[in-house]
Amino acid sequence: MYNLGEIAKLINAELIGDAKFNISSLASIEQAQAQQLSYVVNNKYSKSLLESKAGAVIIHESLKDSCTTNALIVSDVYLAFAQVSHLFKHHVNHTIGIHHSAKINNANIASGCCISANVTIGTNTSLGGNTIVEDNTSIGENCIIGPNVTILQGSKIGNRVVIAPGAVIGSEGFGNARDANKHWHSIAHLGNVIIGDNVTIGANTTIDRGTLDDTYIHNGVRLDNLIHVAHNVVIDEDTAIAASTGIAGSTYIGKRCMIGGMVGIVGHLNICDDVVINAKSTVDKNITSPGMYTGIMPLMPHKKWQIVGVWLIKLDKIAKYLNIKLNHLKGN
Amino acid sequence: MYNLGEIAKLINAELIGDAKFNISSLASIEQAQAQQLSYVVNNKYSKSLLESKAGAVIIHESLKDSCTTNALIVSDVYLAFAQVSHLFKHHVNHTIGIHHSAKINNANIASGCCISANVTIGTNTSLGGNTIVEDNTSIGENCIIGPNVTILQGSKIGNRVVIAPGAVIGSEGFGNARDANKHWHSIAHLGNVIIGDNVTIGANTTIDRGTLDDTYIHNGVRLDNLIHVAHNVVIDEDTAIAASTGIAGSTYIGKRCMIGGMVGIVGHLNICDDVVINAKSTVDKNITSPGMYTGIMPLMPHKKWQIVGVWLIKLDKIAKYLNIKLNHLKGN
Amino acid sequence: MYNLGEIAKLINAELIGDAKFNISSLASIEQAQAQQLSYVVNNKYSKSLLESKAGAVIIHESLKDSCTTNALIVSDVYLAFAQVSHLFKHHVNHTIGIHHSAKINNANIASGCCISANVTIGTNTSLGGNTIVEDNTSIGENCIIGPNVTILQGSKIGNRVVIAPGAVIGSEGFGNARDANKHWHSIAHLGNVIIGDNVTIGANTTIDRGTLDDTYIHNGVRLDNLIHVAHNVVIDEDTAIAASTGIAGSTYIGKRCMIGGMVGIVGHLNICDDVVINAKSTVDKNITSPGMYTGIMPLMPHKKWQIVGVWLIKLDKIAKYLNIKLNHLKGN
Repeated sequence: MYNLGEIAKLINAELIGDAKFNISSLASIEQAQAQQLSYVVNNKYSKSLLESKAGAVIIHESLKDSCTTNALIVSDVYLAFAQVSHLFKHHVNHTIGIHHSAKINNANIASGCCISANVTIGTNTSLGGNTIVEDNTSIGENCIIGPNVTILQGSKIGNRVVIAPGAVIGSEGFGNARDANKHWHSIAHLGNVIIGDNVTIGANTTIDRGTLDDTYIHNGVRLDNLIHVAHNVVIDEDTAIAASTGIAGSTYIGKRCMIGGMVGIVGHLNICDDVVINAKSTVDKNITSPGMYTGIMPLMPHKKWQIVGVWLIKLDKIAKYLNIKLNHLKGN
Repeated sequence: MYNLGEIAKLINAELIGDAKFNISSLASIEQAQAQQLSYVVNNKYSKSLLESKAGAVIIHESLKDSCTTNALIVSDVYLAFAQVSHLFKHHVNHTIGIHHSAKINNANIASGCCISANVTIGTNTSLGGNTIVEDNTSIGENCIIGPNVTILQGSKIGNRVVIAPGAVIGSEGFGNARDANKHWHSIAHLGNVIIGDNVTIGANTTIDRGTLDDTYIHNGVRLDNLIHVAHNVVIDEDTAIAASTGIAGSTYIGKRCMIGGMVGIVGHLNICDDVVINAKSTVDKNITSPGMYTGIMPLMPHKKWQIVGVWLIKLDKIAKYLNIKLNHLKGN
Repeated sequence: MYNLGEIAKLINAELIGDAKFNISSLASIEQAQAQQLSYVVNNKYSKSLLESKAGAVIIHESLKDSCTTNALIVSDVYLAFAQVSHLFKHHVNHTIGIHHSAKINNANIASGCCISANVTIGTNTSLGGNTIVEDNTSIGENCIIGPNVTILQGSKIGNRVVIAPGAVIGSEGFGNARDANKHWHSIAHLGNVIIGDNVTIGANTTIDRGTLDDTYIHNGVRLDNLIHVAHNVVIDEDTAIAASTGIAGSTYIGKRCMIGGMVGIVGHLNICDDVVINAKSTVDKNITSPGMYTGIMPLMPHKKWQIVGVWLIKLDKIAKYLNIKLNHLKGN
């Protein structure tokens, strides 16, 4: 618990409001409640700011007039948020073996595991050797967690979940704010990872925790090996994703999708239900219709590829030379 | 050991044959022997079905006439196979330290390792700290296995093999059957991983076990870091594969190939000997001639790429507008 | 310490010089000093060879005349170098718990960690459970090293460094010499990994050690999850790289670059400061101007992609059919 005076000092903010006002935690502008601090990075969110129930908000001075609550005025809002986030980061204590407060109900824990404070593990769940489960994690019934897995604090894992060796659940998201000197400042990720029932997670796959809200893997999802799931990604029910695919932050993937191997999906996208993406494709825009999508360069003998490539990077010039206009190509 | 009556009940099959007939294990239709159960997913395999020595087969009723042995008739053969597979999955017991049945011949085992039942480890082999070796695994002589490695049950590893930290050998394959409600059902992978002599495997690389047959890494193969090798892949002698490449299920890669980094190779392909694939290419068809292959989009300044892209996705329309036919392009 | 007579025998070389001359270590031709052995693979380096201070050099006989020091004449220099490299590889001893020679200054070491000989760990640094730190490693102050991390011998890590779970620092590089029978021979990597201050390294990311010189991650660099950094890569200050990207050997990446996810960067390239590479692009040539670069195939409905692809791989033939020459496209 920090009061606004302390926070203003940390981030070098002008405080408009009550310095003694206590902040319990951080939240997004839409979700923040009376004791929570939020932030708004630009004017696009001025309506959300006006309607927010947040107890206080970090804003740029240009948004002062849209703010009806305590305001912390700074020149770089995102950087200030990065700095404040660390105040509210849960501190993890190391545990030797199984912490006395852990509730383990007829589970099978191999040697070398560390199970920290307030962990609950359900009936018939099995943990392989040298697996780490940090505090406040819950793991349901009939799960099979492999050896050398790392499950970081606050993760919530459902029933009948399989996690293969080497997977990491709840690692910090890759969110960084850049200061005026172009140095990066990490954002402490305060959300968790939530995993539903009947989910499988492949070997050495990594799932980052959310920034403020949670990263969410819904019931029935199948993730293969070496997949990267970034902070605040939501993968909806019964979607299957093949190996080495990467999903950047805050992207939503609908139900019953099938994503091939080594697909790259950029951040903040929305992919609807029942989409199939072929292996190695790049998804850089929303997908709003079910169906199969592809975007890869065909494989050619190297010499052929070199010759084709020469013309490929000149397609605009070819069109100009042939006096082809885009509107010539409509409707045919 | 289960009899056909029990299996028919589990998968809700109509049994044509002897309910007391005992099944010892599962096998593919070509390899199955008298005490084994197999399955055939579609009519393409009716000849194999006719010629099979399997003791029993899971089939759709449309294949009844091609079946000369005990038959389990179901509406969804692949789903039934997924369900049956779990009956024959080897159950792993956790071990503390080194199991008394392990045969370790002058090897150097670091602290924190778990070596399970019936493991054999050859002379002068070294295991780094916190490495897990599950039961029935064999590791040859003069191997260097790094710390935090996971070697799952039944793996066979030759002599002079180097496995870097964090690698996972023998993880479950990514095979799932989908039911009528679009829920996924994992297939229990019953094959193993076989690794020949003089193989090196990079850090955090994952090699999945086979479904019924084995995943096979032949003598002299070099695998870099963060590579994904799926179930039933075969990589033949002296092939080298650079980092972050992924190989989907059941693909065969010939001898002395050189595969660049971050190449994606789709499943069920056949790549002949002495093939070179440049980094980042996608291989989506068989390669039948030695030589060098490439398939990547050239890097451009972003603005250039945007302009080229506009025309690229209209190549078919440009051809139509210019009245170019494919047969115009032959022979020139 | 080996003398040239012993080394000549190992690699089956003709020695021109002093068989009793002692070699302390290996170094590149430019950096080698009086007690060091180097090698030159082809005639391009004859000037470096002439100017070298190396105590001895492995060369092909065609370079004999450019050599003013002790020479080991072989037919395959790179293969001979691979063989010699193993003589000078540091041998790691396993440690149980914390070695008595480790200097740990008020750090917080979780259970299951192995800290080997001559390791130093600074004040307020924390190591998660089951993490391995091999000998001669130094870790600075206020670092947070996650669970299940592997830090291999000789790594130098600065202050305020965060290493996420499952990361591997200092794994062997992927350098192999091929003999006349097309068998691979690993090169023992004798360089280290150097990590500056304020660096973050994501979950399951792997950073290989250098061949002779070091792999270098400078101050302020941010690396996301599942990234591969090959031997002798240098990533300069304040560069951020998103998940699943791979960087091949000996590439230099400048300051303040932002590299998207799943980018592939081939080896021996030079990327200047302030470059932005969009996700999934392939970098296969030097980048000498700051700015944003892209090289990906646009995503299309699969049927559209199939049709476009037909024409794409015939671009050269279309140009020929239309009688377009490259010089037609200049200046427009």
